[in-house]
Amino acid sequence: MIPISSPTLLLDKQKACANIDRMLKKAKANDLRFKPHFKTHQSIAVGEWFKERGVNQITVSSVKMAEYFALNGWTDITIAFPCNVRVVERINNLAGRITLSILVSDPKTVAILRNSLSNKVQVYIEIDTGSDRTGLKPTDLDIIESLLQQITNSETLNFRGFYSHPGHSYSARSKQEIQNIHQDAVLQMQQLKKHYTSGFSNLLCCLGDTPCCSVGEGWEGIDEISAGNFVFYDLMQARIGSCNISDIAVALACPVVSTNSARKEIVVHGGAVHLSKESLGDAGKQTYGKIAEIDNDLSWGEPVAGCYVKSLSQEHGIIKCSTAFFERAEIGDIIGILPIHSCLTADAMKGYTTTVTADRIDHLQSAEVGVK
Amino acid sequence: MIPISSPTLLLDKQKACANIDRMLKKAKANDLRFKPHFKTHQSIAVGEWFKERGVNQITVSSVKMAEYFALNGWTDITIAFPCNVRVVERINNLAGRITLSILVSDPKTVAILRNSLSNKVQVYIEIDTGSDRTGLKPTDLDIIESLLQQITNSETLNFRGFYSHPGHSYSARSKQEIQNIHQDAVLQMQQLKKHYTSGFSNLLCCLGDTPCCSVGEGWEGIDEISAGNFVFYDLMQARIGSCNISDIAVALACPVVSTNSARKEIVVHGGAVHLSKESLGDAGKQTYGKIAEIDNDLSWGEPVAGCYVKSLSQEHGIIKCSTAFFERAEIGDIIGILPIHSCLTADAMKGYTTTVTADRIDHLQSAEVGVK
Repeated sequence: MIPISSPTLLLDKQKACANIDRMLKKAKANDLRFKPHFKTHQSIAVGEWFKERGVNQITVSSVKMAEYFALNGWTDITIAFPCNVRVVERINNLAGRITLSILVSDPKTVAILRNSLSNKVQVYIEIDTGSDRTGLKPTDLDIIESLLQQITNSETLNFRGFYSHPGHSYSARSKQEIQNIHQDAVLQMQQLKKHYTSGFSNLLCCLGDTPCCSVGEGWEGIDEISAGNFVFYDLMQARIGSCNISDIAVALACPVVSTNSARKEIVVHGGAVHLSKESLGDAGKQTYGKIAEIDNDLSWGEPVAGCYVKSLSQEHGIIKCSTAFFERAEIGDIIGILPIHSCLTADAMKGYTTTVTADRIDHLQSAEVGVK
Repeated sequence: MIPISSPTLLLDKQKACANIDRMLKKAKANDLRFKPHFKTHQSIAVGEWFKERGVNQITVSSVKMAEYFALNGWTDITIAFPCNVRVVERINNLAGRITLSILVSDPKTVAILRNSLSNKVQVYIEIDTGSDRTGLKPTDLDIIESLLQQITNSETLNFRGFYSHPGHSYSARSKQEIQNIHQDAVLQMQQLKKHYTSGFSNLLCCLGDTPCCSVGEGWEGIDEISAGNFVFYDLMQARIGSCNISDIAVALACPVVSTNSARKEIVVHGGAVHLSKESLGDAGKQTYGKIAEIDNDLSWGEPVAGCYVKSLSQEHGIIKCSTAFFERAEIGDIIGILPIHSCLTADAMKGYTTTVTADRIDHLQSAEVGVK
């Protein structure tokens, strides 16, 4: 009998480690420093799997996450998020203890940092290679120049290079589309590097999205990669072409609480607060996950054909079933849901249970909240 | 200066209490017992605001939530979620301490309950009045009869009545549409009651959705209401017509970390892990929240015209601004986001800060996880 009674995020360590090994191999083959983004797993235990493989520099997306990993032995951390000047004191404290890198793209942010920091902080200028989210366009040379001047005139800020997250790769739907985005991002970073290399001979260029890091080819001029999602992957990455469905290393195990034979639907305890409400368009309709059968050792196989999560309420997951699956599903069964977006599911669940060994594994607890 | 440095869920106690008072008044006027659903706030402190007003029966959506409130002095709790037979031991333990009601609609569930319980449990049969999620159609008289037989032959199960969540009211877009759904749900419950009242003279009928409980008129035959979202409301409820935007009692306060003048966009620390990824279709595009300006006492006013949350990444919120708002927004400012779905935002944030007094308020911590 499967030893689960309520929604539980299962983690297949073997698959996650295979994903890590594959990315490490790719980084090595392309002479790239590997600074994995830990925002996906947010786990000290999963972090150890990287450490055992020689990784000693990591990327995170908030000061709180940086503090969590710094407390647990990580000494070189990049916060790959536009610097939040409201937490400059915590940034300064952290920078007194570890090698801390941050991202900037705004002169006002840099001015505040210069006035507030007493410890050395490493600085990347964030570049927007096409995702239209944050960062400067590589053609914004005037602002880049002025930031560089502010940084080089500061005693606490040390210019480290350029960072970009080509997040528009998430809209790719084939390896070729990913490759096109990748080549374009690499080209933009190369041109920037060429422009500034005479002044900054140790300048580093870092790229950070899972699709390009998974399947992109041609890395000349790039020094570092900081992908994160690849450790677990998910249905969105499988759709994009970054991974195979069998590479997905997490599944939400859910008890079946209701069945409806007229609609061939089952309802599980496992809803938007467990999976997150990320969806994928599929043949004209939005879906919220695929179904996998969970074995007694908590592992799972390929998705069950003809079954998908049709909708999510706060705690309900409504699953459209094939006739064959509906006929064998019963009240009290545990079924698995492969998530659309594993980063959000992991953040919602705040912990993992490993397959085979059924170990409990940590995740950073509640989102950063509260009055200063 | 606003005393906030990172994403913080603000709670306006005055608005929440006005929402509670309005629903209490409505319940009283219609002779309805008020059993508010606590899944929205999941907070002992907010629960006290209800208790101070004489509420002593509540509704929740999981055994874990029931345990949380039972530990904190609530003695009559309904778990309005299809009974999860995997946690029958915890249900039995809880039923030994408080008056516990559960929902059933499946003979297999009832059979397991009969074999496992030693303490008395109150049972509602769940009715699907049109939401097509869970429960039996009121016309499924054969199954209802057989459930009633199982229940009445049991020494531990006590039939209490019929429960329905007319969740299809969430697709309404006007008060009239809500009213139509409400009338139809009430009629279905009335017919069921009429059918069974000779055998069960104390039979109760309970309805539980915020739209119908907020604006529905005509409650004959209904004994109890168990709405939950109304305590905070949100943009979805405002869109449906359940509330005014000024009734919304929570806002996510977020620091501005980046600005883009070409796109008239600002980026805040406040993303899918804080707000949840619920969206509303608005003039052909999906939006993820509206913008409110936060005062020094943490309160907020009407949404800023022409501004909305355009997209959410894991920790980024991208806000499309009016020219006027863009021009006054600065790096380091704190701005508010009114959530699309407050239940999911509260669950993601796991805690509140009150306006004016800046008190920290509890929320049940991480989702129920782990091996039994």
